[in-house]
Amino acid sequence: MKKVAVIMGSDSDFPVVSQAIETLKDLQIPFEAHVISAHRTPQQASDFSRNAAENNFGVIIAAAGKAAHLAGFLAANTVLPVIGIPVKASELDGMDALLATVQMPPGVPVATVAINGAKNAALLAAQIIALSEPALDEKLKEMKLDMAEAVAQKDKTLQDKISAL
Amino acid sequence: MKKVAVIMGSDSDFPVVSQAIETLKDLQIPFEAHVISAHRTPQQASDFSRNAAENNFGVIIAAAGKAAHLAGFLAANTVLPVIGIPVKASELDGMDALLATVQMPPGVPVATVAINGAKNAALLAAQIIALSEPALDEKLKEMKLDMAEAVAQKDKTLQDKISAL
Amino acid sequence: MKKVAVIMGSDSDFPVVSQAIETLKDLQIPFEAHVISAHRTPQQASDFSRNAAENNFGVIIAAAGKAAHLAGFLAANTVLPVIGIPVKASELDGMDALLATVQMPPGVPVATVAINGAKNAALLAAQIIALSEPALDEKLKEMKLDMAEAVAQKDKTLQDKISAL
Amino acid sequence: MKKVAVIMGSDSDFPVVSQAIETLKDLQIPFEAHVISAHRTPQQASDFSRNAAENNFGVIIAAAGKAAHLAGFLAANTVLPVIGIPVKASELDGMDALLATVQMPPGVPVATVAINGAKNAALLAAQIIALSEPALDEKLKEMKLDMAEAVAQKDKTLQDKISAL
Amino acid sequence: MKKVAVIMGSDSDFPVVSQAIETLKDLQIPFEAHVISAHRTPQQASDFSRNAAENNFGVIIAAAGKAAHLAGFLAANTVLPVIGIPVKASELDGMDALLATVQMPPGVPVATVAINGAKNAALLAAQIIALSEPALDEKLKEMKLDMAEAVAQKDKTLQDKISAL
Amino acid sequence: MKKVAVIMGSDSDFPVVSQAIETLKDLQIPFEAHVISAHRTPQQASDFSRNAAENNFGVIIAAAGKAAHLAGFLAANTVLPVIGIPVKASELDGMDALLATVQMPPGVPVATVAINGAKNAALLAAQIIALSEPALDEKLKEMKLDMAEAVAQKDKTLQDKISAL
Amino acid sequence: MKKVAVIMGSDSDFPVVSQAIETLKDLQIPFEAHVISAHRTPQQASDFSRNAAENNFGVIIAAAGKAAHLAGFLAANTVLPVIGIPVKASELDGMDALLATVQMPPGVPVATVAINGAKNAALLAAQIIALSEPALDEKLKEMKLDMAEAVAQKDKTLQDKISAL
Amino acid sequence: MKKVAVIMGSDSDFPVVSQAIETLKDLQIPFEAHVISAHRTPQQASDFSRNAAENNFGVIIAAAGKAAHLAGFLAANTVLPVIGIPVKASELDGMDALLATVQMPPGVPVATVAINGAKNAALLAAQIIALSEPALDEKLKEMKLDMAEAVAQKDKTLQDKISAL
Repeated sequence: MKKVAVIMGSDSDFPVVSQAIETLKDLQIPFEAHVISAHRTPQQASDFSRNAAENNFGVIIAAAGKAAHLAGFLAANTVLPVIGIPVKASELDGMDALLATVQMPPGVPVATVAINGAKNAALLAAQIIALSEPALDEKLKEMKLDMAEAVAQKDKTLQDKISAL
Repeated sequence: MKKVAVIMGSDSDFPVVSQAIETLKDLQIPFEAHVISAHRTPQQASDFSRNAAENNFGVIIAAAGKAAHLAGFLAANTVLPVIGIPVKASELDGMDALLATVQMPPGVPVATVAINGAKNAALLAAQIIALSEPALDEKLKEMKLDMAEAVAQKDKTLQDKISAL
Repeated sequence: MKKVAVIMGSDSDFPVVSQAIETLKDLQIPFEAHVISAHRTPQQASDFSRNAAENNFGVIIAAAGKAAHLAGFLAANTVLPVIGIPVKASELDGMDALLATVQMPPGVPVATVAINGAKNAALLAAQIIALSEPALDEKLKEMKLDMAEAVAQKDKTLQDKISAL
Repeated sequence: MKKVAVIMGSDSDFPVVSQAIETLKDLQIPFEAHVISAHRTPQQASDFSRNAAENNFGVIIAAAGKAAHLAGFLAANTVLPVIGIPVKASELDGMDALLATVQMPPGVPVATVAINGAKNAALLAAQIIALSEPALDEKLKEMKLDMAEAVAQKDKTLQDKISAL
Repeated sequence: MKKVAVIMGSDSDFPVVSQAIETLKDLQIPFEAHVISAHRTPQQASDFSRNAAENNFGVIIAAAGKAAHLAGFLAANTVLPVIGIPVKASELDGMDALLATVQMPPGVPVATVAINGAKNAALLAAQIIALSEPALDEKLKEMKLDMAEAVAQKDKTLQDKISAL
Repeated sequence: MKKVAVIMGSDSDFPVVSQAIETLKDLQIPFEAHVISAHRTPQQASDFSRNAAENNFGVIIAAAGKAAHLAGFLAANTVLPVIGIPVKASELDGMDALLATVQMPPGVPVATVAINGAKNAALLAAQIIALSEPALDEKLKEMKLDMAEAVAQKDKTLQDKISAL
Repeated sequence: MKKVAVIMGSDSDFPVVSQAIETLKDLQIPFEAHVISAHRTPQQASDFSRNAAENNFGVIIAAAGKAAHLAGFLAANTVLPVIGIPVKASELDGMDALLATVQMPPGVPVATVAINGAKNAALLAAQIIALSEPALDEKLKEMKLDMAEAVAQKDKTLQDKISAL
Repeated sequence: MKKVAVIMGSDSDFPVVSQAIETLKDLQIPFEAHVISAHRTPQQASDFSRNAAENNFGVIIAAAGKAAHLAGFLAANTVLPVIGIPVKASELDGMDALLATVQMPPGVPVATVAINGAKNAALLAAQIIALSEPALDEKLKEMKLDMAEAVAQKDKTLQDKISAL
C-alpha cells in the first residue's frame, strides 16, 4: 500500500494534525509525518515533494496556518494529490490559511478540507488510496456505517434527555 | 480506467464546469457529466452517489453555487473521493459556496478547489486516478513541464514588451 | 395542533437547540426532537422529511453548524416550512453555517434565523402554527406584552443603578 | 385564504421583489404590495403591521437593503410570521442587509431568505399558508415535481451539448 | 444646556454604555439613560424619539447589538442628531451591529462610532452641544491637552521600561 | 450661521461628495469645500483643522477612500464634530474605508455615515447646526415630511404597476 | 546603484505591475522584470531569489493574485527585502491575495502594499535604495513636494467647479 | 549604523511591540522606542517623522490598532521607509488595523507586515539596513540557517513523539 505523507509547517500545528495521524493509524495506512516549512526550509520542502512519488508516497497531506503556502508549494513539485489543511494559527480565525490554501491558480490543485479539518484530510487520503485497495475500501464503508449508527445512538440518548426535561 | 463523474447543480454552472470537461478530454480520461441538484432532485443525487463506485466511477466532481450542498451530499452517500467546486453564483462572490463546500464536518470530507476552479478539479481527479494509471501519470508530468515552459516563454515576451517601453 | 420537529445535526448542538425546546414547552406546542445528520445519516434525514407532513408535523426546525446542509436538505424533501438555525460550531463564528443555511437556491426556501437563534426559531414555528390556532395566537400576543413589560422593568432598575453612580 | 403582504422599503427594490409577486400570482395567493419605509414612514410601517392580522393578512414579506430594518420593525409590531428579503442595494453586496435582517434578538424572529431571494420568500409564504389550505399544498407539491422534471430535462440537454464538444 | 439621551436596547448593553455615562458625568453634561428596545418596545421608542426635542434633549445616543435597529429607528422619528454605538453582542464580533447601524439609507443619518465605542459617543455628543456652550468647549480642549500629556507621560515610562530590558 | 467644511482627500471623491454639497446648498447652509489630503498634504490638513473653529466652521465633513485617515486626522486637531464619509475607492467595496473611518480610538470620535453616504453626512451636519438655528430645524422637519410623502406617492405608483401585471 | 527585481507570477498581472515599472523608470532606478511563478516554475523562483543579492539586486518586488505565494516564497530564499503586491485576480476582490501575502510567519517578512498597489511598491523600493543614494533621496523629496502641489492645484480647480454649481 | 525608530500608538501595544524590540537588540541594531499617537499627539507624530532622517533614523516601525493611522501618518511626513504593524486591539481581530495600515493611496507607501507581526517588522527593518551593512547581512543569513536548523530539530522531535503514539 502506498504511504501517506503528513507534513506540518510548524510543530505548533501538531495538536491539529494529530487527528489525521490517529485516523491513519486507525485505518492501518502506512504514513510518515514531518515538520517541514515552505518558508523556513524551502529546499527540504522542494526535495521532499519532488521525491515523494518514488519514495512510495501516494498522497501528501500538508497543514499550515496564516499565509499557508505549504500545501501549494508541495503541489508545485509533484503530481501526487496534495491535501491542504488550513490551520487556525493567527488572529484571523483561519480564514487567511483557508484562502491561502484553497485559492490555487489553474494547473496546481490543492484538495482543501475545512479549517483544522485534519481528520477529514486523513479520510480523504484513505478514500484516494482505497481506489486500489479493496480492503481499505471495506474499512471506509464500515466506518460510514458506524458513523450512522453513532448518530442513531445519540438520537436515542436525546430522547431520554428530553423526557427528563 | 475508472471514470470521473462531473455533476453540476444547475445548467447555469456549465460555463464554469466546461473547463473541467475540457481538461478531462485533453487527458483522455473517461467521464460522464450530469445536471443533478441536491435540493431539486435529492433522490437522483442520492442514487447517483450510492451507485457511483459500482458504475465504475473513481472520482466525483461536484460544482454548485450559493448554499452549495451538492458535493457534501454526494460525499454523504459514497466513500469515493468527492471534489467540490464552489461556483460564484450569487451576490457574495462565491464566498457562500466556498464555505458551504469546504467546511464539512468530521467524517465526510470534500476535496475543495478554488472558487470557479474547475480546471484544477479535473487535474486533481486526474492525479488521483493516475496513482494506478502510469500513462496518465506521465501525461500529468509532461503537462507540468509544458506549464513551466509556457511561463518561461511569457517571460521572454515580457522582455520585449519592456524594451519597447 | 400540528407538531414541530426539532432536528439537530449533532448532539453537540443541543446546548443551543435546548432553547428552542424550552420555548416550545413553555408554549405547550407538541414537538419531537431528533439527532439526524444530513451527512452521516442522509437516508434517515430524507425519510424523516418526506414523511413529516403525514406524521402530523407542521413545521421543521433544523440546527446545524459549519457547512450546514441539514435545513436545506430537509427542505428539499418536503413542502412544509423549514426553519434553519445556523449554529456556531467552527472557527468561523457561525458565518459558514449562516451562509450555508440562508443562501438557498430558488425553489427551496429555508426560513433562517440568527446564528444560535434557537429561541426565535421556536417562536417563528409558533407564529406559523398560530395562524390556525387562536389560543396559541393569544399566548404569543401575551408573550409580546410580557416582553415589553420586562423592558420597562429593566428601565426602572437602570434608573436606580444610575442614581447610585 | 389569508393574504400575503409584500412590503418593500423603496421602489428601487421592485425589480427584486417582483419575483415574489409573480410567484404569488402563479400560485393564485391573494396579496397586497406596498412601498413603506421603516426609516422614512415609520408610522405607516407601525400601523400596517399592527393591523395586518385583522386585515386578514397571514404572512408579511419585507424587502429592504443596506441597514435593512424593515422586516424587524414590522415583526416588532405583530405576531404574524414575517419573512425578510435582504436586498443588495449598497456597495457591500447585500451582506449589510443580510446581517441587519437575520441577526434579530430573541423574542422577535424574522424568517430570512437569501440575498435577493424574493422567489423563495413567496414560496415560504405559500408553504406557511398551505398548512391550512390543502389545494395550495397540492400545488406546491406539483411545483416541486415540475422542478425535479426541469432538472432532468436540463440533464438531457447537457448530454447533447457534451456529445457535440 | 440641552440634555443627552442615552438609550440602550437591552440592559445587557450597560457595561459598554456605562463608559458613555461616565464621560457625560465627567463633563457635567445633563443626561437621561433608558432601556428602550426598537423590537420589544417599539411604541416607547417611537414616543421617546418624537418628543425628545421638546423634552429638551439635544442629542440622542443609542446602543444596540446584533441587528441593531435602535439608532436608526430613533433617527426615523426626530431631526435631532442621533449617535449609534454598535455593541458586540453576538457571535459576529459586532460586525452585524456596525453594518446595521452605519449603513442607513439617504435621508436618515446615524452618526456611528466604533464597535463598543461608548466613550467616543459621549465625546461626540459633547462636541455637538459645545457648539453653543463655550464652557464645555473649553473643557473639551483641556481634555484634549490632558490626553496628549498622558501620551507623553507614557512615553517617559516606556523609556524606563526599555532601559531595564 | 456656522459654516460646514467639506474636505475630500482626492478630487476623484467629488462625484460622491457632490451629493453632500447639493444638500447643503438646498438647505442654504454656508459651506466651503476643499481637496486636502491627510497623506499628501498633512500640514494643510493639520492647519485647516486647528483653525476651523476660529474660521467660523461648526462642523467638518471629511470624505476619503482606502486607508481613509482624513476624518480621523482632522478630528485629532479640533474639538469640532467631524463627520466621516467612507468612500468606495478600492477593490474592497469601501469596507477598508469604513473600518479606517469608524474604528477610532477612545478620545477622538468620528461620526461615521454609510459608505458613499454623502447626503446623510450633509443632513447630519445640518441637524447639528440646527440645534441653535430654529429656521434650519424647521426646514429639516419639512424635509422629513416631504420624504414620507414621497414614499406614499411611490406606493400609489406601485399600485398602478401591480394592477397592470 | 542596486537594481530592483520586479517579478510577476503571471503575465496577466502586467497591467497592474506596469505602474511599478513606470515609477522605477521615472526615478531612473535600474530594474529587471520577469514572469516567474512560485507554483509553475518553483525552481526558477528559488534560483532567482537565492542569487538575487550577488546579481546586484537590492530589493525584490513580487506581484501575484489568488493564493499569492510568490512574495513569500522569494522571501524564503533571500535576506533581501521583498515587497509583495497582492493582485486582484480572483472572485474575492484581492482579499485572498492580501492575506496570502501579508500574513507571513515569524522569520520571513514580506513588506506588503495595498491590493494592486504597484506604484507604492516601486516607491517603497526607491525609499529603501535611497538610504544609500542621496540623489535618489532628493528625487523622492521633490516628488513628495510635487504631490502636495498637485493636491493644492486640484483644490483650486474644485473652487471653480463649486462656484459654477 | 542608522537607527530604527519603533513607534507605538498606545502603551497597550507594548506586549506586541516588545518582540520587535527584542529582535533589534538580538541583532545589535540601534533603536529608539516611543509612544506617539497620530490621534492624541498629532504634532509630536508630525515632528518626529519630519526630523527622523536628520536624527539618523533609517527606518521607522509603527504599530497601532483599530483605525490604525499611525504608520500612514508618519509616512506622510518622511521619505524614509515606514513599516506598519497592524495590532489586534479591537473586537474585529485586527482586520480593521490591517486594512487601515496596508490600503494606503498611491504616493505614500507603508510596508505592512502581519497582524501583530512585530518580529517580522524588526527583521524587515534589519534587511533594509543590511543593504549597506555587510556584518548585519551576515547575521541575517546565519539567523536564516539557524531557523532552518530549528525546523529540522523539531522534525526529529516529532519522530520520537510519533513512535511513542
